[in-house]
Amino acid sequence: MGRRFDTVSFLSDYGHADEFVGVVHSVIRTIAPHVAVVDLVHDLPPFDVRAGSLALSRAVQYVAPGIVLAVVDPGVGTARRAIAVEVGEDGEGVLIGPDNGLLAPAAQLCGGATRAVELTNTAFQLQAPGPTFAGRDVFAPAAAHLACGVPLTDLGEEVDPYGLFPTLIPLTRADGTALVAEVLWVDRFGNCQLNVDPADVDPFGDVVGVQVGDHPRRSARRVAAYGDLATGQLGVLVDSYGLLSIAADRTSAAEILGIGAGSEVRLIPLD
Amino acid sequence: MGRRFDTVSFLSDYGHADEFVGVVHSVIRTIAPHVAVVDLVHDLPPFDVRAGSLALSRAVQYVAPGIVLAVVDPGVGTARRAIAVEVGEDGEGVLIGPDNGLLAPAAQLCGGATRAVELTNTAFQLQAPGPTFAGRDVFAPAAAHLACGVPLTDLGEEVDPYGLFPTLIPLTRADGTALVAEVLWVDRFGNCQLNVDPADVDPFGDVVGVQVGDHPRRSARRVAAYGDLATGQLGVLVDSYGLLSIAADRTSAAEILGIGAGSEVRLIPLD
Amino acid sequence: MGRRFDTVSFLSDYGHADEFVGVVHSVIRTIAPHVAVVDLVHDLPPFDVRAGSLALSRAVQYVAPGIVLAVVDPGVGTARRAIAVEVGEDGEGVLIGPDNGLLAPAAQLCGGATRAVELTNTAFQLQAPGPTFAGRDVFAPAAAHLACGVPLTDLGEEVDPYGLFPTLIPLTRADGTALVAEVLWVDRFGNCQLNVDPADVDPFGDVVGVQVGDHPRRSARRVAAYGDLATGQLGVLVDSYGLLSIAADRTSAAEILGIGAGSEVRLIPLD
Repeated sequence: MGRRFDTVSFLSDYGHADEFVGVVHSVIRTIAPHVAVVDLVHDLPPFDVRAGSLALSRAVQYVAPGIVLAVVDPGVGTARRAIAVEVGEDGEGVLIGPDNGLLAPAAQLCGGATRAVELTNTAFQLQAPGPTFAGRDVFAPAAAHLACGVPLTDLGEEVDPYGLFPTLIPLTRADGTALVAEVLWVDRFGNCQLNVDPADVDPFGDVVGVQVGDHPRRSARRVAAYGDLATGQLGVLVDSYGLLSIAADRTSAAEILGIGAGSEVRLIPLD
Repeated sequence: MGRRFDTVSFLSDYGHADEFVGVVHSVIRTIAPHVAVVDLVHDLPPFDVRAGSLALSRAVQYVAPGIVLAVVDPGVGTARRAIAVEVGEDGEGVLIGPDNGLLAPAAQLCGGATRAVELTNTAFQLQAPGPTFAGRDVFAPAAAHLACGVPLTDLGEEVDPYGLFPTLIPLTRADGTALVAEVLWVDRFGNCQLNVDPADVDPFGDVVGVQVGDHPRRSARRVAAYGDLATGQLGVLVDSYGLLSIAADRTSAAEILGIGAGSEVRLIPLD
Repeated sequence: MGRRFDTVSFLSDYGHADEFVGVVHSVIRTIAPHVAVVDLVHDLPPFDVRAGSLALSRAVQYVAPGIVLAVVDPGVGTARRAIAVEVGEDGEGVLIGPDNGLLAPAAQLCGGATRAVELTNTAFQLQAPGPTFAGRDVFAPAAAHLACGVPLTDLGEEVDPYGLFPTLIPLTRADGTALVAEVLWVDRFGNCQLNVDPADVDPFGDVVGVQVGDHPRRSARRVAAYGDLATGQLGVLVDSYGLLSIAADRTSAAEILGIGAGSEVRLIPLD
């Protein structure tokens, strides 16, 4: 076989307690031993398509050229489609996974889908007694065969590349002088990424009010780095993806505020 | 050195909080830089040889050709033997680990052990101040040297390949019309794999009674996929390994039932 | 580009819940596709430079020749320096990370730093909207470019290789006949590594008293392996790094004693 792609970047909610991730690696290595599998993240919250879609959107601009394999698939074995989507000029990258909203934002960030197929050709799948592990039986073989040079259209029937299941990212809204935002992501350190363009709070000045539900309003200093904050002090800063994040120094802002992914946060100008 | 094998598939209970897994990778890469190490799973419950044996049994049919390195080793440093076992025709694969029940079922699934050695030759081991990290000092060097072409019998004395320490998998039993089963594995999503051939509950029809201890009896629908279940509804299905599993849609069946690996579950015909 | 190094051994406190580790892998693979990244450990306690420094010190003697990338970096984006340090004869290895104490002990274990640069040349960095992910934007590109043959001194200004920020490892002290020690590390299995040379407790004989705070004094048997202990019995043994560890058989000594990294433990001769 040829060697069209040599990297598969792999994201899932399979976690690390079971051998799911390892078996997917094994299937790829058996079919396409020349491929390096790069694990993007696997400890996504189980079943959480939105979290997977956001993580993939953050990572995709950095992945090595080749194939992205993304599996957060609560509908495995049902009518949801399994797809492979070519993106970029000359189909230079391929995204593979369930068509449930996981892939659409990443496809857009890669310049848009140019072609797509539904993975219906069982000749490029593993036979299995039950349909519950499509990562092993459908998606990994598709990635591996593509990497070996199998043409995209051999994997199944072409489908409309503009018809991918969308993921909706919430927009901020104004409420009086306040900006009503949503937490997109809480990372391991407790930093809370908001759906907020930092420029939108520039008019608020050096200190921003932060209100969560009926809790007392907190103040957050506008800083450039976590270490610019004093112990126990909240801050807002431009994070490494260009969005506004709420942070604290060497402790979890999410715990201080009692918030998580999906929480509503009101940013309020002070005086 | 030669390059007899180029893949080591690695399973352990080392977890990810410490550098154990990384050091094993490092030792293999230093001795055999041409080898790719595929991590099968490392967050097995600590000391749990049975869980490791079952995970390895599930994974082994998918691993890439080469060496399997398996370390769940509560008896490290004591009289339990460290072994390497050739399996398959022409010794095409080798299983390495402690002889404590971890390897025997996988060896059988690979067509049976053809030759075995006890890893007694310290010339192919790392010297260490204490005997507590055999993965680093004994097993990883054995895997790496085998991958480089060192003959199996250079690693130590031959032992009886039919004399591996066995793992006993519990059998189901009938109790009146009920089938008394055991949970083999609860995965990250809370699906409960039973030691039950799905054909054995075919006579029970579309709904199966599920009884755990003295708890009220629950009903589980026979379905093909998790997504076929309504919210909160229990189901039984043929899982990706061909065994019967108890599942729920987007939530943990194990939590609903209060069960874990090793729990007894009674399957009861309803009519 | 050339191929000066082909291994990057990577340690961080990035955890596995987010895509941080995967993005660092991706950046390295994009710049230097010939490199294998070996993950040493990533689930270090967040922000814990000392734990990272100790883990790196334990692992570094086993890492494959090449580059070590270490990121535990609570001061990211502030005045702490980002550095690359050549170690060993002929600069045969390079350590990359923040100059906050993480690297100094490992550099010493590798024969001492021979040259060092501060990573100030933005031509070998990724541009980013915020300064909070130096692993991605500064450290990974530095590792990848070095691996491709970029000279160390192209990455930034030379700094004094003897001026690295130190990490202080606590010394034991005598208190009467007792030896006052500190827990350096509790591993996944609950074994407690102490800052104690096993020879120092040889005079104590076969059983050592263990006192934690005001708790009742426990006895620990001097053994060679975990499996030499009876159920529920505490022991002390020479661990795989040559230090004294407190252990129990198939259970956590740390839980039994209620201790963690940094706890003070008094070892007392019994007679």
